[in-house]
Amino acid sequence: MKVTVIGLGLIGGSIAIDLRKAGVATELTGVDLNAEHGQKAVALGLVDKVETEDKALQNADIVILAIPVNAMCQLLPSLLDAVKSTAVVIDTGSTKNLICRSVANHPKREQLVAAHPIAGTENSGPEAAFSGLFRNKTNIICEKERSSDHSLEVAMRVFNALGLRTIFMEPEEHDKHVAYVSHLSHVSSFLLGQTVLDIEKDEKNIFALAGSGFASTVRLAKSSPEMWAPIFEQNLEYLSQALLEYIMHLQRFHYYLMKRDIKELNRIMSSANEIRRVLDGIELKTKSQQSETHIIEPNNNGSTKN
Amino acid sequence: MKVTVIGLGLIGGSIAIDLRKAGVATELTGVDLNAEHGQKAVALGLVDKVETEDKALQNADIVILAIPVNAMCQLLPSLLDAVKSTAVVIDTGSTKNLICRSVANHPKREQLVAAHPIAGTENSGPEAAFSGLFRNKTNIICEKERSSDHSLEVAMRVFNALGLRTIFMEPEEHDKHVAYVSHLSHVSSFLLGQTVLDIEKDEKNIFALAGSGFASTVRLAKSSPEMWAPIFEQNLEYLSQALLEYIMHLQRFHYYLMKRDIKELNRIMSSANEIRRVLDGIELKTKSQQSETHIIEPNNNGSTKN
Repeated sequence: MKVTVIGLGLIGGSIAIDLRKAGVATELTGVDLNAEHGQKAVALGLVDKVETEDKALQNADIVILAIPVNAMCQLLPSLLDAVKSTAVVIDTGSTKNLICRSVANHPKREQLVAAHPIAGTENSGPEAAFSGLFRNKTNIICEKERSSDHSLEVAMRVFNALGLRTIFMEPEEHDKHVAYVSHLSHVSSFLLGQTVLDIEKDEKNIFALAGSGFASTVRLAKSSPEMWAPIFEQNLEYLSQALLEYIMHLQRFHYYLMKRDIKELNRIMSSANEIRRVLDGIELKTKSQQSETHIIEPNNNGSTKN
Repeated sequence: MKVTVIGLGLIGGSIAIDLRKAGVATELTGVDLNAEHGQKAVALGLVDKVETEDKALQNADIVILAIPVNAMCQLLPSLLDAVKSTAVVIDTGSTKNLICRSVANHPKREQLVAAHPIAGTENSGPEAAFSGLFRNKTNIICEKERSSDHSLEVAMRVFNALGLRTIFMEPEEHDKHVAYVSHLSHVSSFLLGQTVLDIEKDEKNIFALAGSGFASTVRLAKSSPEMWAPIFEQNLEYLSQALLEYIMHLQRFHYYLMKRDIKELNRIMSSANEIRRVLDGIELKTKSQQSETHIIEPNNNGSTKN
């Protein structure tokens, strides 16, 4: 099938690599506002060629959208207008509510599958793309009932080729959950990085003492602001709620620290230790997804994965 | 040499393994208030035997102290009283100011080397110990001038056997730096974990959407409260300062988020991106420590490492 990937960064590039590998894509066309990214994507073999959006949409069977979420909302209506009537459009946005709303009344809404394959690294751009990024990761489809059976079927071939396990959620529920388990982590990491960079101005060599724990906690502070600022804005309400709760917890901890209430600090940390259960689950997922209602296993759905 | 390790957890256990491997320890005796830990340490071969503190100190050439920092402050004076006059005591505490003060006027102060080998994982107990934990990690010695030449020489044999690179700092400077690059990371991680566990009570399956970014950010929330609560209390002043700065940054970010000031959010995140330089440095360190004043390279100092 002819696949057009709009946005040739970490996500779009990694999808391109594995769609070609799996034989789902026989022809890969890229679109990127950044000409340099486009050239690199061709040079790296992520796509066969780069074209203008108009041209790249004309004959595409599948269109993958992997650009910042605000650009998605702007682009989606005209993009659905432009694609042929059998084409399937898949967006990969990290927020889902505003994206779904942007085409809620579009006559070709059923050609869109609103998805969020939950994977990534702190790196960005076409050089960051790699095969296997999505293997055994979770994918969310929102408003499944608004996509046609044909669109869902084609989209599942794509997701299965990437090795994703797909579950279904409503956009509001999705956005609330990712505010806590993804967006808040990014904010906390960005500002932890900032706090320590700030003090570095006064304290030379402060990082001589930084170890692997610090590295792990601030890793996400390397993430792309261009990608994340629009995500945070689109998920403002839930992220704000998560952030205020986090700040409240930090202030409470600070209060007991200043009171030297070791017993209470101990209690808070012991309670946080329960996260071990969750993290063990995340690690397990990479081997075999825990069974849960609504999960579709790869290869059950007419996948062409080889 | 006869080595006594007090505290048979991740740190004490890992030191024991590598001191035996390197031939520095010919006889290893363990001390632990927790009888079960003691038995496990013997069963795992970390130490040859477990004894009471009094007995284990009598003939020890080297005493390694790897217990919570509040217990160190309490124990150190009587421990120095008890060891023979040629013995060298090394503490591995994550704070240094109060520990140094606890024996500031002790007649046998020069037999102590106040150190902080900066390594660890989120796991604890004797089963968490492993060979190589300290390899290519940074070690801080505080108040070097208060230790005798003999004590420093023996201690350097220990640190070199572990593969540590040693630098020197004053206790206050040490405690301030670790407040930012270690203790704050732990607090942020504990409370991020707590925030998300809290919301989980209302939102089932919230962790279905958690990915590797979340796992990386909350990994330290698995750490031992018994070890960390005393560290936080001993470093209360600097940790409080770091925590308030961090909370201020989070609140500022929240303010711009609510104003939908994307430009400012972008600016904050771009500035935090500079952490990449630091993290690349931390990764580099595991290969070859960047040269810096006061660094003593392993194997330059009469090491018996094999």
